[in-house]
Amino acid sequence: MAETLNRRIVLAARPDGEPKASDLRLEEVRLPEIGPGQVLLKTLFLSLDPYMRGRMSAAKSYAKPVEIGAVMEGGTVSEVVASTNSAFKPGDVVLGYAGWQSHAVSDGKGLRKLDRAAAPLSAWLGVLGMPGMTAYTGLLTIGQPKPGETVVVAAATGPVGSAVGQIARIKGARAVGIAGGPEKRRALTEEFGFDAALDHRSPTFAEDLAAACPDGIDVYFENVGGPVAAAVQPLLNPFARIPVCGLIAHYNDSAPPPGPDRLPALMRDVLTKRLTYRGFIVSDFQDQAPAFARDMSAWLKDGRVKAREDVVEGLENAPEAFFGLLKGRNFGKVVVKVA
Amino acid sequence: MAETLNRRIVLAARPDGEPKASDLRLEEVRLPEIGPGQVLLKTLFLSLDPYMRGRMSAAKSYAKPVEIGAVMEGGTVSEVVASTNSAFKPGDVVLGYAGWQSHAVSDGKGLRKLDRAAAPLSAWLGVLGMPGMTAYTGLLTIGQPKPGETVVVAAATGPVGSAVGQIARIKGARAVGIAGGPEKRRALTEEFGFDAALDHRSPTFAEDLAAACPDGIDVYFENVGGPVAAAVQPLLNPFARIPVCGLIAHYNDSAPPPGPDRLPALMRDVLTKRLTYRGFIVSDFQDQAPAFARDMSAWLKDGRVKAREDVVEGLENAPEAFFGLLKGRNFGKVVVKVA
Repeated sequence: MAETLNRRIVLAARPDGEPKASDLRLEEVRLPEIGPGQVLLKTLFLSLDPYMRGRMSAAKSYAKPVEIGAVMEGGTVSEVVASTNSAFKPGDVVLGYAGWQSHAVSDGKGLRKLDRAAAPLSAWLGVLGMPGMTAYTGLLTIGQPKPGETVVVAAATGPVGSAVGQIARIKGARAVGIAGGPEKRRALTEEFGFDAALDHRSPTFAEDLAAACPDGIDVYFENVGGPVAAAVQPLLNPFARIPVCGLIAHYNDSAPPPGPDRLPALMRDVLTKRLTYRGFIVSDFQDQAPAFARDMSAWLKDGRVKAREDVVEGLENAPEAFFGLLKGRNFGKVVVKVA
Repeated sequence: MAETLNRRIVLAARPDGEPKASDLRLEEVRLPEIGPGQVLLKTLFLSLDPYMRGRMSAAKSYAKPVEIGAVMEGGTVSEVVASTNSAFKPGDVVLGYAGWQSHAVSDGKGLRKLDRAAAPLSAWLGVLGMPGMTAYTGLLTIGQPKPGETVVVAAATGPVGSAVGQIARIKGARAVGIAGGPEKRRALTEEFGFDAALDHRSPTFAEDLAAACPDGIDVYFENVGGPVAAAVQPLLNPFARIPVCGLIAHYNDSAPPPGPDRLPALMRDVLTKRLTYRGFIVSDFQDQAPAFARDMSAWLKDGRVKAREDVVEGLENAPEAFFGLLKGRNFGKVVVKVA
């Protein structure tokens, strides 16, 4: 077999605040022939997700940062094009973490074979994958919505937020979604079935939110932080649960914002309203993967959960799409069609 | 029976920041004869507790504020001196909420008869009462200390903190206590058996705390907020639990403190370390009262839990003792010997 030309995007520099084009670099390298027990993968779809912003920084987090010069991390759906590993054969399609590149060599560990007929392949990066399971585990394990309660989620047309709202409704709760702009807002009620939808860009957003939550908020699925979280806080009911899943409004912060210091007031609310704030990462709930796969597949099949994708063509367009994602410019789950 | 002269302390004004003597007022009033089904109580012991600061303010909280001119609320051990209620007879000793006064008239609701022989009567206001059960329920239900883990608590010579540390040790965890001044610090290890003790007034407090917690902090029982909480935060381990029980450092705050705004950094820690902050009030766990009574009585009897009291003589000295409590001047559970 001829040598393979691999196109890859590496971390060129750690961003200071908002990431820019020069922080990432497209390279072409020749891959050697695979060795014994290895597989050569061709990337079909690359997932772009907000957590990747964290990997670009050296700040301590739950996962190690991407090294300077290393390929950006990312979930992928790939096709096996060559294999010396008995578990895989050319033509197999696998879910893995091959990163931002056209090809990858793997020893097969952590790869999961996909059934081409079960669902569109890119769905394994979205509603049937990490974002869908993030919504499922965080909402049900920490949020624990009860029938008639009010569940609020922002970034609500995104893959996590849209699943949170739809699962909340399946559990009998009222789903209130927040998104940016009239088109996304409309999609929340018309496409995803939210009970109420809000545009966080509205100058009367805080009042709009209060009006949309006349009985207060019992579960706030925290994806964003920032002004949305500030508008939510006074509406939280006693015993409200706040699964903390993401803080996209703060990922580019390079220093603590100016005062006043809102921490004591938050703690006072935690105390007097007996709130529960709990951070989580989907991998903490790996034991729920079978339950998630069973429930979400069924909900997709019977139409109770809908998923929306924002497909970007070509690896070279991944950086711009990623920067847009951090600013809320995407509309649905962002996947890059690589091959 | 002659009319009874009742001495009582009422809320004269809502404090602006730190409460002062003129915010409370000692009055004498004549009580009428008791009516049918009532009991006349003579207060033996009045409990002073930090939560009372909250009741002096009009700010929304989990309980209604004390009205201006009304008797300050408080837990009491009282003796029945007259009764037309068949459930009580003169000489009975009862636990209740008669408030800051020498006498009270009750219809018997919410009174619990005490066995004079079971424990010193004032213990029902401390280790066997609300503060002890606060420690027990918050630590075990939310903190969930595991053997070998590190549990940190401030105000640690107080009735809640000392019980938290001692229960943590009973459960096999390492107990690190924080208190103000060398005498209290010494009592933590020598009297209450903490594994390590710190003085929060030390100029090297943050470094001292880090040195005392070489394996990080798994449970931080939050009693105080303020600089202690700030020193704890960077030491919290992944999956740490923070029962939020009190914030005495902030009870006199009349406005949010100046910046920077530490809220986003806290939320980032909640997310990346998967922390759980959960507020609670002992009454949320009323169903645990029998388990608490059984366990704590046994621990007191076999000496595994020790309790320290700071007894104040005379109702007229309650205000000054309460102001001192808010500044950490007490040393142990504050009870006022009223009769």
